[in-house]
Amino acid sequence: MRQAEVIVEVPFFDVDAMEIVWHGHYVKYFELARCEFLKQINYDYLQMAESGYGFPIVDIRLKYVASATFGSAIRVVAELVEWDCYLKFHYIITDVASGKVLTKGMSKQVAVSRETGEMCYESPEILLHRLGVK
Amino acid sequence: MRQAEVIVEVPFFDVDAMEIVWHGHYVKYFELARCEFLKQINYDYLQMAESGYGFPIVDIRLKYVASATFGSAIRVVAELVEWDCYLKFHYIITDVASGKVLTKGMSKQVAVSRETGEMCYESPEILLHRLGVK
Amino acid sequence: MRQAEVIVEVPFFDVDAMEIVWHGHYVKYFELARCEFLKQINYDYLQMAESGYGFPIVDIRLKYVASATFGSAIRVVAELVEWDCYLKFHYIITDVASGKVLTKGMSKQVAVSRETGEMCYESPEILLHRLGVK
Amino acid sequence: MRQAEVIVEVPFFDVDAMEIVWHGHYVKYFELARCEFLKQINYDYLQMAESGYGFPIVDIRLKYVASATFGSAIRVVAELVEWDCYLKFHYIITDVASGKVLTKGMSKQVAVSRETGEMCYESPEILLHRLGVK
Repeated sequence: MRQAEVIVEVPFFDVDAMEIVWHGHYVKYFELARCEFLKQINYDYLQMAESGYGFPIVDIRLKYVASATFGSAIRVVAELVEWDCYLKFHYIITDVASGKVLTKGMSKQVAVSRETGEMCYESPEILLHRLGVK
Repeated sequence: MRQAEVIVEVPFFDVDAMEIVWHGHYVKYFELARCEFLKQINYDYLQMAESGYGFPIVDIRLKYVASATFGSAIRVVAELVEWDCYLKFHYIITDVASGKVLTKGMSKQVAVSRETGEMCYESPEILLHRLGVK
Repeated sequence: MRQAEVIVEVPFFDVDAMEIVWHGHYVKYFELARCEFLKQINYDYLQMAESGYGFPIVDIRLKYVASATFGSAIRVVAELVEWDCYLKFHYIITDVASGKVLTKGMSKQVAVSRETGEMCYESPEILLHRLGVK
Repeated sequence: MRQAEVIVEVPFFDVDAMEIVWHGHYVKYFELARCEFLKQINYDYLQMAESGYGFPIVDIRLKYVASATFGSAIRVVAELVEWDCYLKFHYIITDVASGKVLTKGMSKQVAVSRETGEMCYESPEILLHRLGVK
């Protein structure tokens, strides 16, 4: 499967006055798992830049099912589900101890040529090679 | 209209290596405008807690149209569009100088009783009073 | 006096489980006031870069006297106290309502040539011009 | 030795427009290592609260020697150097690959009774027990 995961131990500075992780921090957790996937296929942000492309996020969604608290370990799984015209990932965050689902999400990012600043309507060849689909 | 806005001058620490605002920070900007609205109707987070309720975010979505850069002023408008069973806000962020749309979004939050920890299927009376619909 | 100030309304996402601003966020407040000063003398981060220099922070100190809570307005004053060999600022943060001192601090930053990557042992001419001391 | 360490892989969202970790984020890295130490002696923030005390940071200092970049692994060591009247930690952050020192620092925190809100002039007995010095 085209996926990667990271385990995050919830830091104190991510927890809000309700004693749960502030909802905005999950965007960071998603990025950690996405970056882990991109690193594993040898196409991280630096390699993207070297290859002449950036992949800005154009759409992101988060659904909160249950909350995470300080010190708990959470598993963040990012799965690549589309790559032809854009990179689309699905995310699922679970509590390591209980296996309970905490958060689900999605992100889309598109290739932009660093030379022209133009958005690409098809994924660059190099990405498809790194994914082993070409 | 049930809306409020804030102006944010993009701080250096919100800008990433691409020299644009890192996508996750927009969740903060949304919250600033939402809190401004709640403050205007006299029902901010502290008043929610005093009234016996929390309103955790259960769903959030962000669509990125264009990027914001260090030092630019952005206008963040939060508009309350539903309040019967949950609070649903729409957001639109524009560049103050050009009027250009940068980001759009949505958030949903539900009332949770602080006493029982249970989710409420209808908005609490106090919220409806503060909104002037009851 | 060589100083500038900003007013910050403490956002919810800066408040921790103790219901006070998490100590690390004050570094952001310091930067907001410092950037305001640099903007006023027409030498912000972008103008620094255009002039061929970066000014990375090399030393920072924060002393916490009292805590700030969600929604309170705080005044952040940055005062430039040295500029010959490095930029040194003093900071003081007070609660707007009570005038009470919350935090004090200091930062030092040195000029680094963007061309050579070397640290400068004297402040660049352009900075001294912007400060009106040359 | 009374110390603990964590390894952090620098995330993209901690890197600024200069393509280095923004200086304020090191306060987070310090806290990660400090919390690891406190966890190892069975006296983390939750256990502090249960024992009737909070330990707010009253002083923090950071010296920046060299910068960290996206994706690099950094080692953060926190060493407890005083505990009689307050908790004082020294920190040192090094690049894992080169062993090069990146940042040094210090933090002080004092015990505050959660019941009275008063600062304690001596460390609570429970802390000394957890440290094995009483």
